[in-house]
This record gives sequence, structure tokens and C-alpha cells, in this order.
Amino acid sequence: MSIDFKAETEKIGRKAQLAARRLAALSTLRKNKALEQMSEAILARKEEIVAANALDLDAGRENNLSAAMIDRLTLTDGRIEDMAKGLVMLAGLSDPVGKIDANFIRPNGLSIEKVRVPIGVIGIIYESRPNVTVDAAGLCLKAGNAVILRGGKEAIHSNRKLAEIMATSGVEAGLPEDFVQLIPWTDREAVNYLLKLDKYISLMIPRGGEGLIRFTVENSTIPVIKHYKGVCHVYVDKAADLEMAKNIIVNGKCQRPGVCNAVETIIIHKDVAPEFAEIIGTEMINRGVELRGDAEFCKLVSSAVNASEADWHEEYLDLILSVKVVEDIDAAIDHIAEYGSGHSDAIVTADKMSAQKFRNEVDSAAVYVNASTRFTDGSMFGMGAEIGISTDRLHARGPMGLEELTTYKYIVSGTGQIRE
Amino acid sequence: MSIDFKAETEKIGRKAQLAARRLAALSTLRKNKALEQMSEAILARKEEIVAANALDLDAGRENNLSAAMIDRLTLTDGRIEDMAKGLVMLAGLSDPVGKIDANFIRPNGLSIEKVRVPIGVIGIIYESRPNVTVDAAGLCLKAGNAVILRGGKEAIHSNRKLAEIMATSGVEAGLPEDFVQLIPWTDREAVNYLLKLDKYISLMIPRGGEGLIRFTVENSTIPVIKHYKGVCHVYVDKAADLEMAKNIIVNGKCQRPGVCNAVETIIIHKDVAPEFAEIIGTEMINRGVELRGDAEFCKLVSSAVNASEADWHEEYLDLILSVKVVEDIDAAIDHIAEYGSGHSDAIVTADKMSAQKFRNEVDSAAVYVNASTRFTDGSMFGMGAEIGISTDRLHARGPMGLEELTTYKYIVSGTGQIRE
Repeated sequence: MSIDFKAETEKIGRKAQLAARRLAALSTLRKNKALEQMSEAILARKEEIVAANALDLDAGRENNLSAAMIDRLTLTDGRIEDMAKGLVMLAGLSDPVGKIDANFIRPNGLSIEKVRVPIGVIGIIYESRPNVTVDAAGLCLKAGNAVILRGGKEAIHSNRKLAEIMATSGVEAGLPEDFVQLIPWTDREAVNYLLKLDKYISLMIPRGGEGLIRFTVENSTIPVIKHYKGVCHVYVDKAADLEMAKNIIVNGKCQRPGVCNAVETIIIHKDVAPEFAEIIGTEMINRGVELRGDAEFCKLVSSAVNASEADWHEEYLDLILSVKVVEDIDAAIDHIAEYGSGHSDAIVTADKMSAQKFRNEVDSAAVYVNASTRFTDGSMFGMGAEIGISTDRLHARGPMGLEELTTYKYIVSGTGQIRE
Repeated sequence: MSIDFKAETEKIGRKAQLAARRLAALSTLRKNKALEQMSEAILARKEEIVAANALDLDAGRENNLSAAMIDRLTLTDGRIEDMAKGLVMLAGLSDPVGKIDANFIRPNGLSIEKVRVPIGVIGIIYESRPNVTVDAAGLCLKAGNAVILRGGKEAIHSNRKLAEIMATSGVEAGLPEDFVQLIPWTDREAVNYLLKLDKYISLMIPRGGEGLIRFTVENSTIPVIKHYKGVCHVYVDKAADLEMAKNIIVNGKCQRPGVCNAVETIIIHKDVAPEFAEIIGTEMINRGVELRGDAEFCKLVSSAVNASEADWHEEYLDLILSVKVVEDIDAAIDHIAEYGSGHSDAIVTADKMSAQKFRNEVDSAAVYVNASTRFTDGSMFGMGAEIGISTDRLHARGPMGLEELTTYKYIVSGTGQIRE
């Protein structure tokens, strides 16, 4: 018998909405207790998780998944413990729900409060990492939201098991039924219907490659907050401390090249290019980084290859760095506006005027002066945890923590005021 | 020769993005001066506007537009003066750009500021009122955004003229070229392409009927903030001051029935229903309001007709009121959750516990205790002006003023910090 995906996803949406109403009214204490019990349940049922994960790994090997994919899919004891610890850590963070953003009295005596409330139902679409199942559900729950999860088909056994453990232990701890639901089918058709459930779901967060994200944006009638890519720049100003610039670039490129806040392109002011090209050229070559430069940089560093137009758009996520030499700071800012992804971009300079200009004119989620772009991260920003980093401009920009998983309502209190 | 709408709308998007970069860097003074000069230009060229409007009115009469449509389309001297005054008023409001939302120092010494910046390019799709051309462009400009306008075809001559006057006078006053652009074609094809320009446009605001809004949501790959409808409720608690309740309901229903924050449904606690039904029944009948009640209410007020299921969903925008009698406050809250539109809902009560429960559990953009829902409005909330009232949950909820037309970026300043 074939499944009526439209009717079934609709049911899931409706149930999530009912759960969301109940979740919104829960105390912080109740949510924290539940997070702790869910954490314990994950630890207590570790063997079941490993067994479910083994089914996914077997299928993955049969389907010739790459070693990297298999690695992402694998739930080791350590990774399971990390998921469990993550939930306990969330219990320790302060609850954004109920926070008063503003509070004012109008001339007619009306008191208006702007109060943080949960968003409602959040949908998460993700690919092969099963830890997202636990991390995302925990974050949504702490902010008072119901969550509908749709993981990749490679991880379906692991995801089903993790979702079942969370659902069971969460409900035992007093959470409403259906506070977390996993779409149990791997068919794409189910996703299509899910993306049209704007009646029930208020926010869709896709986590994965560009293909998944584009698919979500193009097919969703639900608002989407996304992260396309991080093409992060460091601009070395003519007034830069070159030692500092080197350290910031090395940190940005080499400390963890595969992440979105890693540096992909550096831009060097022509006045310091000869001196800095030598410093950074030597350093990068020693660290095994391939350099792709514009004509000017290639003149200065013989081992650099010519960058193509495509290089400036590229998120390498690898030990490759593109380098451009510019006439002035305006050219650097123009380059970032043209090729950047609005994620994180830095200037290294000792000149206050240059710093000011860069801060004002570079329009990225995080703009850095004399610091590494690698700091764009929920925990580094003091949010405690993040569900992702938004390169969008609406609702949430940059690291998205618990507060970004809430919205607000206005509460207006009066003594019978009416409008004239 | 046919127009290549894809290429042409793309060009408009690209130009708007360039303008947005320049607008973001403009001083408040420059923006205010421009608003004032645009206002003067509208007054100075009033006759041209009236002449352009006459073309639309002639076409409208030929096409048998309703009297209400013709009225909305008409630009009288008074309405033109109001548009001009609106721009001057905007010049007087404080500029949200540059406002610091948060400011903190991390343990590693990094200073992080969360600063308000313009959204970028905003698209406005609207129907027949030509004043939106000026009001929306002015609001977007004050918040530092470039705007692309797409008005209804009935108002195309008026809109073209108004946009041309603003563009000319704005650029004369130092604004960048293309800070405001009007889609000059009335073909629907152009809108389809516009709604896919997520590369250039960061926010789409549709203003008009449900059809226009649904079309925008279904076809846009750009984030949309919308206003579906306002099905606003007043719940008369058993502890209500009945005189206050009457006044709030009369104000909500009768003062201006055609607006979104008008009251459509009242819910009465059964304990006060006999007494209050008589008060409100008499009052409403005297004011020419048709009453559509549930069985309980119809027993109490003989002139009430039976409400159908559809009535509870209805935004009448007219002198019609649906009335329900409930067992308790929970039933009232459930009714609002089921049938409300998340706009504005009120309780009238002298009981603090009931007020608290209603505030917490009713999930609407504005929740009122002992005050009229008619206050949900940018000017009543002290925002000075509004571009609309959002019934969405992301980014902006309730009245959307200048601040809601901005986003934020993080500015991180260090002394060479790198990530361990």
C-alpha cells in the first residue's frame, strides 16, 4: 500500500502545532529536567544506538559511500557521549523565553512590553550527520519550539533510534507528545509536502550542501534561514602589523580549513605587498598551502599559480588560498562586496580611519578588525550553542543561538483605553 | 519588440544592489534632507500628479472599477499633501541605522558590537493605492534601503509619475541613482522574475488582498513578510468590568470596521453572558451591527442570527460581529488558537490571574489586557510610522516600523586574537 505523503505530513504538522502550544507554556525547570533525562536516556541506550548506526554503516558501505561520508555517519561511543553532554549543556544555558526586549508606557497610559516567545514549529532538513538529530532537537526544545526533523536517508536507522529515545524520555519527563518528530520516510516526496506546510511550520532550517539549501529555498513556502557558504577574506592594510596579519591568516586558513569561517582569500595593500608576499608566501608554502594569486602577487611569489575568476568565488574548505593585491582599501572593500558571501571578513590595520571605514562599509554578518574570522561561532560569541550560522539578512544573521530560535509578542496592558 | 523581462528585472535588481551599498553609508542628515526635498518636489509638481492620476481614473472608469476602487485610486490635493507631509514626518524620526543593540567583551578581550544596518534591497508589491509608492519608498529610504516598487496596473500612470518625482528630487538631494525604482511594466511576467531575484533583493513585502499575498509567498525565493488577515477577538471574562468591555468592543467594531485591527469576534464567559448579552446586544443593534451568535448567544439575544463555522474564520471588515459563549477562559484561549489570525486579541477582566493566563497563552502579535485592539498600529506603538503589520513570526511581528526595516551585523574588534 502506498503512503499518502500529503495527508501524513499534514498530520505531523498538526501534531507539532499542538505540541508547540504546550511547549510554549512550559517552565524553564521542566525543559531543563527533560533535557537532562533525555541525555541520560541516550547514555543508557548507547548500545541500541550503536546497533542502529551499524545498519546505516553497512548500507553505506554497500552503497560505496566515500570514507568521509562514512566518517560523518559513524556514531562512536565518544560521539554519543558528546551528544548527551550537549543536552546537559543546553540545560545550563539561560532560557530566552520570557525575556523582555523592551518595555514602555505610551502617553495614554498603555503599558507595552515586547516579550520573547518561541517561534512555534521548526523544521530541520539535514544530511548525513546523525548528531544533528539530537543537537537540533535539544536547541529547539530549550527555546520552547516543537521540531520536525528530516535527516538524510543514509542515517535513517540512527535517526529513528535517536528520535525515539528523545521522544520517549522527553515525554516521560513531562514534555508534550510530539515535541520532536522525525519524518520516518526517506522518499523525497515527503519533503516536498513538508516544505508547503506553512500553516503549521513557522521556520525551516536546512543544514547541508548547497544543493539541499537551494532545493529548500526554491520549494518552501515556509520562511527559510540558511547558510550558503563562507568565502571569508582577510584584508592586509598598508598600516597592518604584518606579524599580526600573518598570524591571523595562518589561523584562518590552517587551524581548521574545512569550516565555514576559515579564510579563503587574502587581499594585500600594494604598499606592503612586496614585504608581506614574502612573509606569507614562505609561511603558506611551509604549511602546505597552495597559493593562487592575481598577476601582481604571482610576480612577487614564484610558487603561486594564477587565480582564475572562479577562484575568487570559491569556498575551498581546503589548504588553498587565493591572494589579490589592491591599490587601496576601497578596492579591497569592492572585492569583498563582489565576491564575498556575507559571512566573516577581517581587516588587519593599525590605522583607526581604515578600521572605521572597513567596519562601516563591509556588509557581512561579522566584520573583524585585527582578529581571526574563526571566531564567528555561537560558543565564541558567548551564545553557548548554535544551530548554525546564517548568511541571510532577516531575523538572524551570523551565529544563531537560542535567542534566534525565538520571536516576540507585544503585551499591551491598559485600564480600558480605547482609540479616539 | 517584446521585452526580455528576465534580463530587465535582473538589471533593476543589480542597480538596486549598487544603490543599496551607497545608501548604507549615507548620513542621517543627508537622508533627512532628501526626504524634505522629495516632499517639496511632490508639492511643487502636484498638478502633474493630478494629471497622471486622471489617466488612471479615466481608464478605471472605462474598465468599470467599483466606486471603492476608484476612491482608493484617487489622488486629491489633500492626499497629495498627506504624502508630502509623511516624508517630512519621516525626516523627523530617529534613524535606526547605527543603533547598537548589544555590546560585550569576551574573556579573550574581543569586543563584539551588534549594530543595526539596512536590510539592503526591499521589494514592495502592492495594489491600487498610489500613496504606497511614496510612503513605502520613504520608509525604506530612511532605514537606508534601496527599494523596488511594483504597484497595481490600475495606478500605473500615478505610480510612474510619483516614482519619477522622488527619483529626480532624491538624486538632486544627493541620494544615489536607483535608490527607488518602479517596475514600469504591468505584465505579470515581470513579477514572476522579480520574485526570483534573491541574489539582489533581501526582503519582499506584499501589500494587498489575500490573493496577492498568497501568490507572492508561493512564487518568491526571497524572504517575504506578510499580513494575511486580522481576525481579532475580545474575550469578556467572568471578572470583566462590563461597561469597560462594552466600550472596548464598540471601539473595536465600530470606530473603523474596515481595518485589520478591528474586532470580528467576541467571546463571553457563561457567568456574565446573560447580563452582558443584553448590554452588547442593545448597543450593537443601535449601532447597526449584525450579530451572528452561537446557540447560547442566540438564546439570549433574539435578533442574533446563527453563526456558521465559516463565521469564526471571517475577517468581516464590516458592521458584523460574531459572538460565542464559553464555559471558561481555557475555551476562549482555545477558540482564539483555532480561529484567530495571530494579529491582536484582548481580554477584559479585573482578575489578575485570568489576565496573566491570557497574556501567557494567547499567541498573537499583540495581546491586550483591558484595552482596545485598535491600538495595534505603528504610530500608536510609538514607532512614528509603519510599513505594515506582520502576522508572520520571523524578523518582524506586529507593527513594522523603521527598525524592522533594518538588520544587524556583528563588529568584532581585537588586538590580534586568534582561535586556539
